[in-house]
Amino acid sequence: MSLFAGIDIGGGSIKGILTDPKGNVMHETREPTDSQFSNDGFIAAVKKVAANLLAKGKAEAIGIGSPGPLDVDQGLVLHSTNLPNLKNTPLVKSIRDEFNIPVYLNNDANCAALGEYYFGGNTGVNSLVALTLGTGLGGGWVYQGKLFSGMNGNAMEAGHLTIVKDGALCGCGKKGCAESYFSAVGLMNRYFDKTGKKPDNVKELFDLCRDNNTDAREVLFFGADILAELIKNIIHLINPDKVVMVGGITASYDLFGPYVENRVKELVFPVFAEKVTVAMGNNVAGAYGAAALAIQEEK
Amino acid sequence: MSLFAGIDIGGGSIKGILTDPKGNVMHETREPTDSQFSNDGFIAAVKKVAANLLAKGKAEAIGIGSPGPLDVDQGLVLHSTNLPNLKNTPLVKSIRDEFNIPVYLNNDANCAALGEYYFGGNTGVNSLVALTLGTGLGGGWVYQGKLFSGMNGNAMEAGHLTIVKDGALCGCGKKGCAESYFSAVGLMNRYFDKTGKKPDNVKELFDLCRDNNTDAREVLFFGADILAELIKNIIHLINPDKVVMVGGITASYDLFGPYVENRVKELVFPVFAEKVTVAMGNNVAGAYGAAALAIQEEK
Repeated sequence: MSLFAGIDIGGGSIKGILTDPKGNVMHETREPTDSQFSNDGFIAAVKKVAANLLAKGKAEAIGIGSPGPLDVDQGLVLHSTNLPNLKNTPLVKSIRDEFNIPVYLNNDANCAALGEYYFGGNTGVNSLVALTLGTGLGGGWVYQGKLFSGMNGNAMEAGHLTIVKDGALCGCGKKGCAESYFSAVGLMNRYFDKTGKKPDNVKELFDLCRDNNTDAREVLFFGADILAELIKNIIHLINPDKVVMVGGITASYDLFGPYVENRVKELVFPVFAEKVTVAMGNNVAGAYGAAALAIQEEK
Repeated sequence: MSLFAGIDIGGGSIKGILTDPKGNVMHETREPTDSQFSNDGFIAAVKKVAANLLAKGKAEAIGIGSPGPLDVDQGLVLHSTNLPNLKNTPLVKSIRDEFNIPVYLNNDANCAALGEYYFGGNTGVNSLVALTLGTGLGGGWVYQGKLFSGMNGNAMEAGHLTIVKDGALCGCGKKGCAESYFSAVGLMNRYFDKTGKKPDNVKELFDLCRDNNTDAREVLFFGADILAELIKNIIHLINPDKVVMVGGITASYDLFGPYVENRVKELVFPVFAEKVTVAMGNNVAGAYGAAALAIQEEK
């Protein structure tokens, strides 16, 4: 069976797997991420991960998932919040020239959607949307087995749909985006607006909710309402069969997930309430999503 | 060159054309719409239009555009606001059985998008969204030359994206939908909220705007802001190359169109401000859109 390499660029490490299309993993490896990586140092680390994988078997292609902003078409990491010394890093060309196999790059939200599709038990789903609920709010759409990548990988910027006209200021500079209400940063900022206190991290906010703190719960459920409206908007536009939520925040899915699922059913047209599944995803690891990118490109 | 029949179910008449794929029309015909049509009377009128067209040339297929709600997959008109005696009318089967050629049905917003694509000078556009600004607010998406029809024709229900959380009540029963701010009904209702007066029709509201009536202008430009946010949301989700506005309200495009175009540029990510065109469409007649439905299905 054909093998594919998947490499996930993370803040702590660069992780790689060598897998067949069913997710039978032949080899796993990782290299530490150095926040001071230069372009060359970064490329060398990714090459090392790839070399380790390819030493264990012949891969058809390599998929790489990375935080943006990227130029997917040109295969560049334009810059990176976690790796401030990177600039227009020619990642795809460097790896392709070294190993002489196809190399594909896409952002981590798109790879997450592909991971949920191929390795999260969703290959039977004709149209799957994954929403990544983490520091920010992202999304990816797998339609008929292929990533809908949009313009240079920019499709499904779900966090930057306006839900509250003239609402809270978003990190993108505009007002009322979904991300400014339901993401780690958004939830903490809204809690600050309400109380003047900023939690150290979003887990602290969820802990307050579990302790029935009124302010924390109001912020969370207002955010959950926004998330439900966002999912309604996505459903009304592109009619996915299934929407899954993944990412760090889903560790607290029990607090908000069932509420969001029910609220979406109330908001959408009856045909969608009946036919569209909204659920927590499997939080398939990023390297699997990156491998899935290679798999779907080579199909 | 192959010929295609297009039939548009309108409130005043049922219009048909026989055309080649370039829009060279061989024949046009129409039958009056009777608001008291039974299922049988309605089908007979559509058959008459089709027979008139097919008598002039051999068509590959017939496309029919109709107001919803439809069951596109089953080829049914489920019911109709303008033709209250229709119920689950088996339109596609009846016409196909009569003429023994493929027959396709879709809603008028989807057909409008196809009409703009094939006959509005947009066949070079990879991803085209058309927004229909009329009594309500609808949409259609032509991607790589094909209608993105979604679940039973329900894709691109653009009017029912939430832009104003907990905003004005929409005809769909939910709050804050784009349609409740920018459509003939929405604009008139918002003007009523503000003034206690209801214009006879939306033209009256636009005339007030031209006379610099402050209330009318505030309602229009608030609506235009919502429309711009809606277009932003669509761009951020599916990254179309072009968004065109069509429909009755675009008769007053000079009043709001340039404002909306500029506002969208301010709201979207820079990459989209640069690459996505937002403009008035060509308001291609509905029968052309219906013919385009047949053309793209037969491709």
